[in-house]
Amino acid sequence: MTSDVKALIFDVFGTVVDWRNSIARLAGEFAGAHGVPPADWEQFAKDWRSLYQPAMEKVRTGELPFTKLDVLHRMNLDQIAAKYGFGDLSSEALDELNLVWHRLTPWPDSVEGLTLLKTRYIIGTHSNGNIALMVNMAKNGGLPWDVILGAEVVQQYKPRPETYDRCCAALGLAPVQVMMTAAHNNDLAAARARGLKTGFVPRPDEYGAGQTTDLEPSEDWDVVGTDFVDLARKMGC
Amino acid sequence: MTSDVKALIFDVFGTVVDWRNSIARLAGEFAGAHGVPPADWEQFAKDWRSLYQPAMEKVRTGELPFTKLDVLHRMNLDQIAAKYGFGDLSSEALDELNLVWHRLTPWPDSVEGLTLLKTRYIIGTHSNGNIALMVNMAKNGGLPWDVILGAEVVQQYKPRPETYDRCCAALGLAPVQVMMTAAHNNDLAAARARGLKTGFVPRPDEYGAGQTTDLEPSEDWDVVGTDFVDLARKMGC
Repeated sequence: MTSDVKALIFDVFGTVVDWRNSIARLAGEFAGAHGVPPADWEQFAKDWRSLYQPAMEKVRTGELPFTKLDVLHRMNLDQIAAKYGFGDLSSEALDELNLVWHRLTPWPDSVEGLTLLKTRYIIGTHSNGNIALMVNMAKNGGLPWDVILGAEVVQQYKPRPETYDRCCAALGLAPVQVMMTAAHNNDLAAARARGLKTGFVPRPDEYGAGQTTDLEPSEDWDVVGTDFVDLARKMGC
Repeated sequence: MTSDVKALIFDVFGTVVDWRNSIARLAGEFAGAHGVPPADWEQFAKDWRSLYQPAMEKVRTGELPFTKLDVLHRMNLDQIAAKYGFGDLSSEALDELNLVWHRLTPWPDSVEGLTLLKTRYIIGTHSNGNIALMVNMAKNGGLPWDVILGAEVVQQYKPRPETYDRCCAALGLAPVQVMMTAAHNNDLAAARARGLKTGFVPRPDEYGAGQTTDLEPSEDWDVVGTDFVDLARKMGC
């Protein structure tokens, strides 16, 4: 039963946008412009992304105070910069490279599906990305969000339970009126545990060839779409 | 010089929407539906609004912890409910009446001007209204915000200086890259004091016949528009 749903909130990295191919492409362009030799930029993207969860875990556990994702990304970049030939670049140049996360490309169905959903529902982000990252990504990619929620607004990282509670509270809605939508089963499980409705859209190419996780729904999520347009249709749009 | 501006952030009550006529109309409709006798609903709107600054001042001074505007509006409503014949209504009915603030009507030029500005700039709210209020108002009125900032995000009320600083920080922009836009000179003065650019649009009918304040710019604001469309044209849109 999703007839009470008034708002859909979305995971973004992997669910709405293709971080792997975007980072690989943009890092390659950046390297070329800065005289850095060619490298395996897809592996660079994966290496950078692999430091994402450990960095957020320091915030979740309280080892770090809340720190926005742009700052965590920059700290993580320092760890891998030398391995990919960026070791001699200035700190300012690495700051610029860090902003490639603001320019990730939507999956081909994302904008169309969100535009359909927006006609009937509030659509917002519930991403671990910070506000500037989400706004710039939306402007670059044409993502028609009604509201940017997520980590910086709720001051904590998913999948901590209070993040879902605080998004609902910010919208003035009960959890049953809000649908968490993601390509990641663990995100949906955490949302369901707080009473939110759940929507799953698989993104089998998020990690490229050989991806083994999140190819299928792991539970009976409230709605499963083959893509965002299919999800919108199933939500009555 | 506004050529560095990347984002415009807006005051909303009075600048983007006409709270006085909207509240008067919606309160009258609500009264009729609840068997409450006719009254001077414009005066009701003004009385309710007159309690707005004193309530926020309790947050600014620390007498109250941060409390979102929906809650302050509801407390203020209790103070005037009996005077306007709402004294016998249930708390739930007054909760419903309180939500008229979510349905304020934009001034005739607001949507067109914002839509033009959005083609070239990030446009966001920097209102004392909370997130749900701003999102619902935008959905009702067609306001095409890129991002909802303001009191609930920055956890303080204008015109406290940190509210402007925190909006810029959330956008990842320097103050000189952000233009505060308002129909209220004191809001712009507070923004200018923090280094933001300033845009003024007079709303001489905000308080109705006999309005004496904010009819003219009180300083040499960076841009002055006769309405939002004129402002957009002057900002190169």
